Amino acid sequence: MKAVIISIGDELLIGQVINTNSAFIATHLNGAGVEIARVITVGDDLPAILDVLRTSVGHYDAVIITGGLGPTHDDITRTAMCRFFNTELVPSDEAKESVAKFLRQRNFPWSDSATNQTLIPRGARIIPNEFGTAPGELFERGGTSVIVMPGVPYEMESMITGFVVPYFAARSAGTYIIHRTLKTTGIAESALAQKLDPVQEIIGGHKLAFLPSPYGVRLRISVVSADHEAGIAAAADIEQKIRRRAGEFIYGTGDDELEEVLGRLLAEQKLTIAAAESCTGGLIMDRLTNVPGSSAYTERGVVAYSNASKTELLGVDPALITSFGAVSEEVARAMAEGIRSRSGVDIGLGVTGIAGPTGGTAEKPVGTVWIACSDSSGTAARRYAFGTGRRRVKQRASQAALEMVRRRLTGLG
Amino acid sequence: MKAVIISIGDELLIGQVINTNSAFIATHLNGAGVEIARVITVGDDLPAILDVLRTSVGHYDAVIITGGLGPTHDDITRTAMCRFFNTELVPSDEAKESVAKFLRQRNFPWSDSATNQTLIPRGARIIPNEFGTAPGELFERGGTSVIVMPGVPYEMESMITGFVVPYFAARSAGTYIIHRTLKTTGIAESALAQKLDPVQEIIGGHKLAFLPSPYGVRLRISVVSADHEAGIAAAADIEQKIRRRAGEFIYGTGDDELEEVLGRLLAEQKLTIAAAESCTGGLIMDRLTNVPGSSAYTERGVVAYSNASKTELLGVDPALITSFGAVSEEVARAMAEGIRSRSGVDIGLGVTGIAGPTGGTAEKPVGTVWIACSDSSGTAARRYAFGTGRRRVKQRASQAALEMVRRRLTGLG
Repeated sequence: MKAVIISIGDELLIGQVINTNSAFIATHLNGAGVEIARVITVGDDLPAILDVLRTSVGHYDAVIITGGLGPTHDDITRTAMCRFFNTELVPSDEAKESVAKFLRQRNFPWSDSATNQTLIPRGARIIPNEFGTAPGELFERGGTSVIVMPGVPYEMESMITGFVVPYFAARSAGTYIIHRTLKTTGIAESALAQKLDPVQEIIGGHKLAFLPSPYGVRLRISVVSADHEAGIAAAADIEQKIRRRAGEFIYGTGDDELEEVLGRLLAEQKLTIAAAESCTGGLIMDRLTNVPGSSAYTERGVVAYSNASKTELLGVDPALITSFGAVSEEVARAMAEGIRSRSGVDIGLGVTGIAGPTGGTAEKPVGTVWIACSDSSGTAARRYAFGTGRRRVKQRASQAALEMVRRRLTGLG
Repeated sequence: MKAVIISIGDELLIGQVINTNSAFIATHLNGAGVEIARVITVGDDLPAILDVLRTSVGHYDAVIITGGLGPTHDDITRTAMCRFFNTELVPSDEAKESVAKFLRQRNFPWSDSATNQTLIPRGARIIPNEFGTAPGELFERGGTSVIVMPGVPYEMESMITGFVVPYFAARSAGTYIIHRTLKTTGIAESALAQKLDPVQEIIGGHKLAFLPSPYGVRLRISVVSADHEAGIAAAADIEQKIRRRAGEFIYGTGDDELEEVLGRLLAEQKLTIAAAESCTGGLIMDRLTNVPGSSAYTERGVVAYSNASKTELLGVDPALITSFGAVSEEVARAMAEGIRSRSGVDIGLGVTGIAGPTGGTAEKPVGTVWIACSDSSGTAARRYAFGTGRRRVKQRASQAALEMVRRRLTGLG
């Protein structure tokens, strides 16, 4: 099946918002056997929307539209759909129910704009919106399935996974595009490429992409196959070959986040964790507590930015700070041991470093971070150089700290 | 002047790479008086490329193409340009010089693929590539300027700023596109729309867009003007009219983040802040410490997830938790007052709630959050309903907590 994505919104045309929606849609529809032939972005402009509908509906199996479904004057996608399909807006009980449910959850009162959101083009099916008032719409016309969704990413994403993917998966039996993503951390892209060289021996006629981010390099295996089982097997074979050469750096697959993987390990091993954070400023605890059910293993954490707070909250000896500096192996160890003994958790993390942009010296430049991990077997510490960029330093340091615990819990040391 | 951006590359259609190039191009061309009418993404596919060229060249003032200029077998953009303009590749001395200069700088040897990169469609002007071997191309045909650049972001970006922007600025003298963004929080999109109704009275013939996110609604004013000063003045006038009706909800403009705005207020007023976080799990402290220089006003913070930690780290009376529950006005107040008195800061925040997906009850459903703010003038607390979605609840709660402090420091209460 071939599809066109139409992204609607002036904000996309002036470069204020980067179009991340189309990448999300493409990834998920590929998994349902739908290939994206084209992505077209237009403004909140009726003639332009009608023009791209004319060149798409009837020419492709699917047209996926996002944006312009909200309640304000610049949201004209519903109007465009009515005009294009020569129909009109009519009240929908199903839409009313979906909007009412959302407003109840948020304690928002019913308003004129809510009533407006219950009007749907006649003949469209409703795609419920779990996270907003604008319902999605499905039209099946002339061999094309037309899906209309809001542009707000989380509203759109829940419609894609909850409705759109199952809908197309049921229709696309015959060709399969299989993607498998392996998430690595703690190894540079070039070092990883060297470990996997020559890559043709691993992938044969298939595809492997290296996708770097502050949290590590994702490896994306892509296999196109007429047979679903054979495609899955080919991807699994490539995965095994990669794991034999670089397995220790792979912490997860697909959308796994390191904090989720670590959370599962902690829950399985019935261990608790607490972080004493200086330069990461709360990001490690924030990530740990993003995971549903994390209260089973996280119970507290401390952001100890100042020297005084390191002493008062964690019992770090002021003499250590004076002798070695706040960014030092000794202080990182004392922070990890301090949070562990004071909170009674199994694993204590201590992180101290220079996030920048100021505060660096020749000996300890911006990006220098000491991370220590303490448990009943002892305390280990390591120095890292995370480069520049305040937020990136925080992200890399949080990832390295979580990875240090993962390696310890999986016996990688 | 109106333009179309054509992004070429299979990686964009499978969602492996997010199209950030078109946002960069749009932002910079807007500044040169060029309005983007459409962004079209196609694969490395000759018929598809020829098809979009046919619908673009001659229909717009400018066509900006990126991708598929490299030396490998799947780079077919030059071939497509020759086919479309009915011409052929010829050796170019200017291209040869540009490629040789780049290779010398990087100490790379000359190669067959370098020779290949010196072949340019007859009649095209060269756009030098400072950071790679593939030169850009400029065609001027039938009233349309066609620019072809590599897809590698930093190669493309240096061509845009060094060549393309000056090129169009010289041609578009007389038209200016002015954007101004106001960032609001604490008010729903529909309520904001109601405050600004009827919007035509505010914007006249100009544009106003509502862009919602978990952190609030951005309002974007867009003015097109033949006179730069008059355009700036029109945007400022619209901003003033919006501020008169909804000014209290506007915390910043442009790319301002609330934590930056709040950081400036805290630094100016020489105040310090600390957060005692339960459901936000460190996100408030993480956001505060994302701001360079934040160590001037943040010194510590506490993540108090468990009841025991609320008592041990913040001195919350266990009887309060037993009587009112951990998610209650009383406990939020005690957390805010506890962190303030124990750490000696000027402003203490206490946040306790149910991020979900479990833990909700009929009386306190998922998304219920109590936020308290304590300073020398007393403690205020408020109950919020942030809906579902664990991460979004955390984001909204962190934003509401920071906003509570901003309102206090600016006298909005």
